[in-house]
Amino acid sequence: MSLTGELSRFVLSLDGTRLPEKVRAEAARSVLNWAGCAVGGARHPAIDAAVAALLPFAAGTQCSLLGRTERTDALHAALINGMSAHVLDFDDTHLRTLMHPSVPVASSLMALAERMPITGEQFLAAFVAGVEVECRIANAIWFAHNADWYITGTAGVFGAAAACARVLGLDEAQATHALGLAAAQSAGTREMAGTMAKCFIHGRAAQNGMLGALLAQRGFTAAASALEGVHGFAHVLAAKRDMDAITAGLGTDWELLQNSYKPYACGVVAHPVIDACLRLRQAHRPDPAAIARVDLRVSARALELTGITSPPDGLKSKWSLYHSAAVALVDGAAGEHQYTDERVNDPLVRGLRGRVVASADPSLAEIEAHATLTMVDGAVHEVHVDAVVGSAANPMSDQELGDKVRGLAVGILPDVQVEVLIGACRGFEALPDVAAIARAGVPAR
Amino acid sequence: MSLTGELSRFVLSLDGTRLPEKVRAEAARSVLNWAGCAVGGARHPAIDAAVAALLPFAAGTQCSLLGRTERTDALHAALINGMSAHVLDFDDTHLRTLMHPSVPVASSLMALAERMPITGEQFLAAFVAGVEVECRIANAIWFAHNADWYITGTAGVFGAAAACARVLGLDEAQATHALGLAAAQSAGTREMAGTMAKCFIHGRAAQNGMLGALLAQRGFTAAASALEGVHGFAHVLAAKRDMDAITAGLGTDWELLQNSYKPYACGVVAHPVIDACLRLRQAHRPDPAAIARVDLRVSARALELTGITSPPDGLKSKWSLYHSAAVALVDGAAGEHQYTDERVNDPLVRGLRGRVVASADPSLAEIEAHATLTMVDGAVHEVHVDAVVGSAANPMSDQELGDKVRGLAVGILPDVQVEVLIGACRGFEALPDVAAIARAGVPAR
Repeated sequence: MSLTGELSRFVLSLDGTRLPEKVRAEAARSVLNWAGCAVGGARHPAIDAAVAALLPFAAGTQCSLLGRTERTDALHAALINGMSAHVLDFDDTHLRTLMHPSVPVASSLMALAERMPITGEQFLAAFVAGVEVECRIANAIWFAHNADWYITGTAGVFGAAAACARVLGLDEAQATHALGLAAAQSAGTREMAGTMAKCFIHGRAAQNGMLGALLAQRGFTAAASALEGVHGFAHVLAAKRDMDAITAGLGTDWELLQNSYKPYACGVVAHPVIDACLRLRQAHRPDPAAIARVDLRVSARALELTGITSPPDGLKSKWSLYHSAAVALVDGAAGEHQYTDERVNDPLVRGLRGRVVASADPSLAEIEAHATLTMVDGAVHEVHVDAVVGSAANPMSDQELGDKVRGLAVGILPDVQVEVLIGACRGFEALPDVAAIARAGVPAR
Repeated sequence: MSLTGELSRFVLSLDGTRLPEKVRAEAARSVLNWAGCAVGGARHPAIDAAVAALLPFAAGTQCSLLGRTERTDALHAALINGMSAHVLDFDDTHLRTLMHPSVPVASSLMALAERMPITGEQFLAAFVAGVEVECRIANAIWFAHNADWYITGTAGVFGAAAACARVLGLDEAQATHALGLAAAQSAGTREMAGTMAKCFIHGRAAQNGMLGALLAQRGFTAAASALEGVHGFAHVLAAKRDMDAITAGLGTDWELLQNSYKPYACGVVAHPVIDACLRLRQAHRPDPAAIARVDLRVSARALELTGITSPPDGLKSKWSLYHSAAVALVDGAAGEHQYTDERVNDPLVRGLRGRVVASADPSLAEIEAHATLTMVDGAVHEVHVDAVVGSAANPMSDQELGDKVRGLAVGILPDVQVEVLIGACRGFEALPDVAAIARAGVPAR
């Protein structure tokens, strides 16, 4: 049997009732974080533009757009909800690979759930299977792949295809073709950083995976060797690969347990710097104008991925640890409101950003950062962060995650509805119809 | 200005009224060949499966599917007509790069033409601009790209985006974003050879390019350096590249003049072998059962791309020069009816296929082949083809092209309607509304 076929068999045969309690709990946290991000991102100009362009191509009104009043069909809902859930760069992260697991899988499954009834139990098994597939494929290639590609675009599409294949009731051969059709659409280069195209790449992973499963359901074929073949996904999109990582511990080790949730609305590698600056602000209450300079020591990857010194706009500022440090010190926050055009151009933020100096320190892990404030009066304040909030060593609590979702929904959903949404996500496994989550995420017209 | 921006300017500023007569004539031949292939491919099982899967997602009935009675929206029409036009592997070829120019550009433009009026003159300029963009991008990378990728999937999407950007009236910044969104979707690995996913990759180039243009029209953004940036299309999808090829002679040298049309319904590199076997059959009328062996000498690329010795089905047989040689000798033809499951399993064809021996001869160009028949009675017949039919040195005549389209439409369109279709394509430049071509390609219900 091909490796692609082996993954299909795993996806279809996974027994959702035997999943460990920790896996079930992490699934609920992932779905809650996904829903909150989708609601919070729904009013972004990128989503406005996409909805304006795509509503004329909506085949009916079966499906909800979280955080919005328009309705569309399942394929477009998977795309647009996926874009909303990622546009703030606030969604979950599989830290080893920097995959964002929920956008492809939850966005496609939730769209299907408004097309056909899906129980909480069915959703759970399909969600876990989809996340395993995409994260395991990511494990095989990320180290020789992420410099060029957005791994959620390229590998996430397999997760969406796998999850949809399961709930659509595909047989093993059809599910293998669905994964093949995912491979045929695998795309998204890193040149798109800081543009609307980034969230598009992520949303397309959800939509394209679903499309692959829908085609395979009707007998459409692809290569059974899509993943492992010499002209297949792993060989073509990565210079090196560790294919054994795809099946090692499959069904016993759960990648979902490595999922993490961001406390801050920007590239995850800049988070230790934010933690450090927030701690300095809380301890010393420095007047931003009295800060002479901010010296940062960070991991090499942090400087590589978030090294933009003078971001031109809100989207690009998510990839600037200089901006992140400045807003953490000025605003005492790094939520979705800190990465806007307005905050980028704020004189106080811009001034302080220009006084931030960062260097890569090879001795620092990605969850670490060191920050030193030198005040105009000569005072020096230092702090070292050794395990950033949101990392596996220091995860967000359920309470913090709920508060994050509440913050994201401000001005979009009434408070009482936010609590319904949070409750539906936390208890999704017991829902007779998970579309209740999508409905809870839609504001009254 | 970025290279991506420079291409956008070219696309929007091209003066269709000043195109050389030869370019206009080749555009009409390309459109005719595209329409014939779309009609001829429309009843393939791959198209049946795609239509069954996608009709529930059709937003209305604005657009035609050539060769079929169902109707759908413009985005789905671009995909499905693009798949139909490629599924027989009978569409046009830019021989240098093996790009199939018309599927992305004509399929997307024709779908838009049923959504908004497009005159023949507008279609001409947009078609030529789209073909220039995709073929020039292909020129920059094919030599370090085609081993892994289907270049019509990866580079063709730019052609569709460019053509749609022009007819949608995008400004230069928007058109640059449309090309960026094309880059964000660039996909399709060669592992899919001989599966339905191959025509899907080709059709998606049309649909995805259109989608990029529709999003950009509403203000959606992408990287202005999508093509040339260090994490952009050319660097990520090719190990080497010749970026100067993209703009050298832009607006004066026309890639469309390098377009060619297949007389045979299979991979173009196998065509010299077919020519050779057809000539041997015509000259000697050999009884297939009396042929002891067939020795072929071919170009290295022909053996690499069409080296399948025992194809399992019709789609795979398009990549077998052994099968092509056998059907040419048995049937005296290599049209769409020779690459079916039935012909693959025919005892006479299968027997002869097993007696074909092929070797790569580095002294042979891709348009050459040498064939030797050794008969059971010891007689030996030889032939050398030095310029295959359909090559630039030996192009199909207008008459041959018309007959090809007539053959493709047998059993799908009534004869009189085929002549209307041929006439509309040949004279498309004078049409007040090019949607007349799509309408002529649809059978009565």
